[in-house]
Amino acid sequence: MTDVKTLGKRAKEASRFLATASTEEKNRALLSVASSLIENCDAILEKNSVDMENARQSGINETMLDRLLLTKERIESMAQGVREVAALPDPVGRILDNVTRPNGLEITKVSVPIGVIAVIFEARPNVTSDAASLCLKAGNCVILRGGKEAINSNTEIANTMRNALEKVGFPADCINFVEDVSRQSATELMTMNEYVDVLIPRGGAGLIQACVKNATVPVIETGTGNCHIYVDKNANLEMAAEIIFNAKTSRPSVCNAAESLLIHKDIAEKALPIIKKRLDEKGVTLHGDEASRKICPDIVPATEDDWGKEYLSFDMSVNIVESTDEAIERIYKYGTKHSEAIITEDKNEAEKFLNKVDAAAVYHNASTRFTDGGVFGLGAEIGISTQKLHARGPLGLNELTSMKFTVRGNGQIR
Amino acid sequence: MTDVKTLGKRAKEASRFLATASTEEKNRALLSVASSLIENCDAILEKNSVDMENARQSGINETMLDRLLLTKERIESMAQGVREVAALPDPVGRILDNVTRPNGLEITKVSVPIGVIAVIFEARPNVTSDAASLCLKAGNCVILRGGKEAINSNTEIANTMRNALEKVGFPADCINFVEDVSRQSATELMTMNEYVDVLIPRGGAGLIQACVKNATVPVIETGTGNCHIYVDKNANLEMAAEIIFNAKTSRPSVCNAAESLLIHKDIAEKALPIIKKRLDEKGVTLHGDEASRKICPDIVPATEDDWGKEYLSFDMSVNIVESTDEAIERIYKYGTKHSEAIITEDKNEAEKFLNKVDAAAVYHNASTRFTDGGVFGLGAEIGISTQKLHARGPLGLNELTSMKFTVRGNGQIR
Repeated sequence: MTDVKTLGKRAKEASRFLATASTEEKNRALLSVASSLIENCDAILEKNSVDMENARQSGINETMLDRLLLTKERIESMAQGVREVAALPDPVGRILDNVTRPNGLEITKVSVPIGVIAVIFEARPNVTSDAASLCLKAGNCVILRGGKEAINSNTEIANTMRNALEKVGFPADCINFVEDVSRQSATELMTMNEYVDVLIPRGGAGLIQACVKNATVPVIETGTGNCHIYVDKNANLEMAAEIIFNAKTSRPSVCNAAESLLIHKDIAEKALPIIKKRLDEKGVTLHGDEASRKICPDIVPATEDDWGKEYLSFDMSVNIVESTDEAIERIYKYGTKHSEAIITEDKNEAEKFLNKVDAAAVYHNASTRFTDGGVFGLGAEIGISTQKLHARGPLGLNELTSMKFTVRGNGQIR
Repeated sequence: MTDVKTLGKRAKEASRFLATASTEEKNRALLSVASSLIENCDAILEKNSVDMENARQSGINETMLDRLLLTKERIESMAQGVREVAALPDPVGRILDNVTRPNGLEITKVSVPIGVIAVIFEARPNVTSDAASLCLKAGNCVILRGGKEAINSNTEIANTMRNALEKVGFPADCINFVEDVSRQSATELMTMNEYVDVLIPRGGAGLIQACVKNATVPVIETGTGNCHIYVDKNANLEMAAEIIFNAKTSRPSVCNAAESLLIHKDIAEKALPIIKKRLDEKGVTLHGDEASRKICPDIVPATEDDWGKEYLSFDMSVNIVESTDEAIERIYKYGTKHSEAIITEDKNEAEKFLNKVDAAAVYHNASTRFTDGGVFGLGAEIGISTQKLHARGPLGLNELTSMKFTVRGNGQIR
């Protein structure tokens, strides 16, 4: 088991090779990774069955078991994901700006790789190939540290990818995997400033907060989403019910799922029963304030805790508000700056909401579930940034690059 | 003396006002700040004389005293700086991207303020108005914490600016000043994640490292520069000598000044005496390796410490290298990723250097002293970022903004 520092050192060294690799070379490496995942499918499945057995014995729940499970189809889909990344445009070498100054200096701002990206993630083994392929396409070496539940699957996937790189003459160390799943190895990764240029945590709020608090390397905060949907007094109620149903129930475990419902008081009496009826079809439990419970008495009484909660389940909080302004205030107070929506036919209220709500994505008359790299046209994503520095919203390939200025002169001095 | 938490809370609250202030309103506020600095000139000078007296008594050196000193002219120049920021284009509300997806969703990526920016800085009182005006123009509230040497000057400048804001109906809390100069107040600022969106340290390597190590809020690392100039075997030696003379001696105390000289072995015997002669005019002390001392025996022997040192004085290290590749290796090992230059008439060597050296700015045949927001056409800067996330190189107004996605639909669900 290689220690984290050694992995860091190797990744840093390999990053110098990868930074100047051509698009064709990187794509060839990615296609080799995709083929090797397919070729090595049986071995990966075998290791996965060990993880599954361990998980079952430790009494893990069904949802978690399903996240952990790999099948032939899932491995094929991982390989397909890698091939799709190969097909995306190279984010490195884009001319971001180019100017010739009065003194004749030609200043060009060009996109370059970041260097070494550490990714700490939890259960899903597919993150191993997703994250590695996006980082590699953007010219970055990656250090992956997954959860202990998937350690056998992840190790096999990582080794498969490393061997695939060597087959095409790339250093295996472009992709590094931390086999040590102790808390200490995570902490070491968070503070290895000499080797790690950025850390991207992918997982629950606990993991992300641990990274924010303990990391000395720059962190891109991803993903917790207490997403609100606000139904304005001038909303189309049928549209509202469909959007809320979609945003809450289509995939409750993801960060862009809606968790909190706000309804304008003037329309609440009419709107709430319609919305609730639709949500009842999937057995959604509403946790509401007093005003909402007056309209639908079978709504569960909410506590202060409910307003800020990311349920990630078939639960949703509901609150009757006086105005759009109050809705904006509540989102400011309880939101996580991920995705927020207003449903209204009133353009002015919509624009006010779009302008005043501070979040990665703010919607008018659409489901919060659209906050996604693929949907936004970025191709693929390594996560959703909820912080304001560097990148906000879906992190696509461009967001995995930095920039530098190249300056060409003929003897200029200042 | 208001405690740091309270300042943070107030800044956060005021940032909601400032985020939606119009360009005209912000410019009016900036012009009010400029006028008030002029009007209150005498009071500021009086407080500055207290700082100067204290500094003299504590035996501070002449360079530091000069940094601390304010004069009528310097205050006028501060006011002029604020007026220039008012004249720059508003970085908020720029449409960064706009796409209509096949499902009809219109997705717009728009620049928005970051929120609350904390700036920890050292001696110069002019940073108080520079940083505040740039932050304000970009729609951000600022929390300033200066060094203890300038505490009286800074407090007066900050209060002058706060009063100027109130005169035009802005919350004074758009600009906040930490009067507590204890180490504790700095640490509090570094860890106040609920109120501070980004921390920008401006000062020496000690301050910056303290922020990187201790901050839990996102930090933009600025400024330490061990900038190299590499003289290739095909360099124009007259040009080389002029560029090195300029980069080393025009202002040795700044981060874009050159600190390390690398010379190709094939040209060293001819080049070094010419370069040294030019540097001798300003009494530059060269600290060199053995090979350089064989050519010019009066070069001081260098130790390993010299290679990575940011002298900020009339000192420079010198090293004879085998090749451009070795120069690139040394820059990788000892550089701070700020500004690096190659002097050569060989285009291929130049392009190799520009491509392979990883730094905020990489130069061909020009002085490293050009790494500057004004020179790069960004108008003004709050510092030079030497990190890779968010922004690299001069931090202008655009770099003081974040972005959000606004999504307009008509009932789309996923």
